Amino acid sequence: MSSDAPGLLGAACPVPITETDQVLMGHGSGGKLSAQLVETLLLPAFRNPALAALDDAAQVSVGGTTVAMTTDSFVVTPLFFPGGDIGELAVNGTVNDLAVSGARPLFLSLALILEEGFALAELRRVIESIQRAAAEAGVQVVTGDTKVVNRGKGDKLFINTTGIGQPIPGVSLSSANVRPGDQILVSGTIGDHGVAILSTREGLSFSGGELRSDTAPLATLVEAMLAATPGIHAMRDPTRGGVAATVVEIAARQRLGIEIDEAALPINDAVRGACEMLGLDPLLVANEGKLVAFVPRAECDRALAAMRAHPLGRHAARIGEVVAEHPGRVVMQTLIGGRRFVDLPFAEPLPRIC
Amino acid sequence: MSSDAPGLLGAACPVPITETDQVLMGHGSGGKLSAQLVETLLLPAFRNPALAALDDAAQVSVGGTTVAMTTDSFVVTPLFFPGGDIGELAVNGTVNDLAVSGARPLFLSLALILEEGFALAELRRVIESIQRAAAEAGVQVVTGDTKVVNRGKGDKLFINTTGIGQPIPGVSLSSANVRPGDQILVSGTIGDHGVAILSTREGLSFSGGELRSDTAPLATLVEAMLAATPGIHAMRDPTRGGVAATVVEIAARQRLGIEIDEAALPINDAVRGACEMLGLDPLLVANEGKLVAFVPRAECDRALAAMRAHPLGRHAARIGEVVAEHPGRVVMQTLIGGRRFVDLPFAEPLPRIC
Repeated sequence: MSSDAPGLLGAACPVPITETDQVLMGHGSGGKLSAQLVETLLLPAFRNPALAALDDAAQVSVGGTTVAMTTDSFVVTPLFFPGGDIGELAVNGTVNDLAVSGARPLFLSLALILEEGFALAELRRVIESIQRAAAEAGVQVVTGDTKVVNRGKGDKLFINTTGIGQPIPGVSLSSANVRPGDQILVSGTIGDHGVAILSTREGLSFSGGELRSDTAPLATLVEAMLAATPGIHAMRDPTRGGVAATVVEIAARQRLGIEIDEAALPINDAVRGACEMLGLDPLLVANEGKLVAFVPRAECDRALAAMRAHPLGRHAARIGEVVAEHPGRVVMQTLIGGRRFVDLPFAEPLPRIC
Repeated sequence: MSSDAPGLLGAACPVPITETDQVLMGHGSGGKLSAQLVETLLLPAFRNPALAALDDAAQVSVGGTTVAMTTDSFVVTPLFFPGGDIGELAVNGTVNDLAVSGARPLFLSLALILEEGFALAELRRVIESIQRAAAEAGVQVVTGDTKVVNRGKGDKLFINTTGIGQPIPGVSLSSANVRPGDQILVSGTIGDHGVAILSTREGLSFSGGELRSDTAPLATLVEAMLAATPGIHAMRDPTRGGVAATVVEIAARQRLGIEIDEAALPINDAVRGACEMLGLDPLLVANEGKLVAFVPRAECDRALAAMRAHPLGRHAARIGEVVAEHPGRVVMQTLIGGRRFVDLPFAEPLPRIC
């Protein structure tokens, strides 16, 4: 193990990953190709402190007031899936990026790119779903845009939501705060969203129960956690690339070691079965209603109790800790007693899950 | 002429325009179908004061500070065209929506939807263009997102930018302020952007000079106008649907009459020639670097002088006025001495111009 901590990209990838001149599906996957695009093209073009923090939401100053801002486009296919649809996802995804950055979500923009020929009845269902999800999350849709592209130049419906919110006073959540000794908590079962999308798309079913997306707005869970344990260092919502992408990114950027205990990972039986059959690692599969928290050791029990007292945190668990050893690396204690590195794949295996 | 002012939709459209169950290109055109989608589906779903104002940007309150917010997706084809590209357009379009609402543009989010197979070299060109345009407009890109869709499920590149800004103290620009007697000013020649896109797309050329998009950031022009004439009632940037869409919408929503003087419309020779050959009305063609201002009569000359003193307002002109007669209707005094109603087409004839 080298103490010459590698960057997010270099970690364990001897392949020269710049060897393509075209956009690949993996550029949008949350894997190494995504990271490469961000690090080599986007970050250098737009260097500024708010962007460089690379947290789930940027913090900017408008007239002396700090405003949190985040954006996400949603290209999930199919549009409707067990547990949710693209509209609900578009609200919750953006609201959650604000929430885990320590901001109270307030307002959303809503931009639709429609494909010619898309059924207006389906659009209506999606809009109604956005309406419900916004009401549940306590945010208002205040501005919007609609574009239409020719048949065959889109895929029914893409949605962008951009959210702004107000940082909760006295709260500072940022991956820059993470320290050795921090305990890593996850708010519930992992992999539900990605596996539900995949099984719907491929028409697969598995024993062990229904596969449903976990899409949900996390702001009230975050507020409950912060009320109980204001000293939480950082939170993330582990969407594309799953919990693995979250911990690998924080380990690499903050030059910290992370240890994950595979036996502690909360996983639904149906998701576990599906992942075994499909050869997927649940740690790499997207979630849409979960958060990962980095909590000082002394506050871990209190944070866990607060999470478990909230309906969206009932299955919260401690899954690992931050260590001073092996900076830049995530190591998993496996179920069978071994230890292995956790790394991001070149391209995550589930495209268009959000 | 009826004083029973029709709505934006009903104005002069006896055809029952709800008779489709699919998305049509016209739903994104800035014509009547677009308006119908907004009025029948989107506005009812998200009723709130900020959205209902339907100005180019919403004004919301974050921690007691007023923040202006606006969103736009860009699906223009081709990506590169004389005078600009999709990246420059994506910055200027959103910056201009903030500027004409009386806000100083500050921060942008940037969300990319890439089609698998899109050339990374072209993406790089677009990103560099966004970088330049953001620097020129004085805004920072502070948060972003990248998604990739399968080949044949997108069209190279779609961009969403959402912008936030700070309302200029003491300024209130809103179409709700427009009054009979207001003079209608346009900051320069009309139709340049739409005709440049169309001619590039169709490989057409016309005599009378080069056709170039007018894409430009308008914030400094707006500030110069407001410094000279703080009493300006409203501004809009006449993009999709052109100047016609702007004045028809304000006439219909504010129940005011509007008179336009065709002879006063500033039009480049090349654009005029192209429109004549193609049977297009320049009043309906999109602009990307122009604004329309509604100015009290007493301040008209001062506003025009301020516009003409700015590089982006050299060809500014008074093109009409707001009247108490024929509420809800726009009437044009034509070049040949007649009078005709100005109305929006069912679907504007130039899809995907922004």
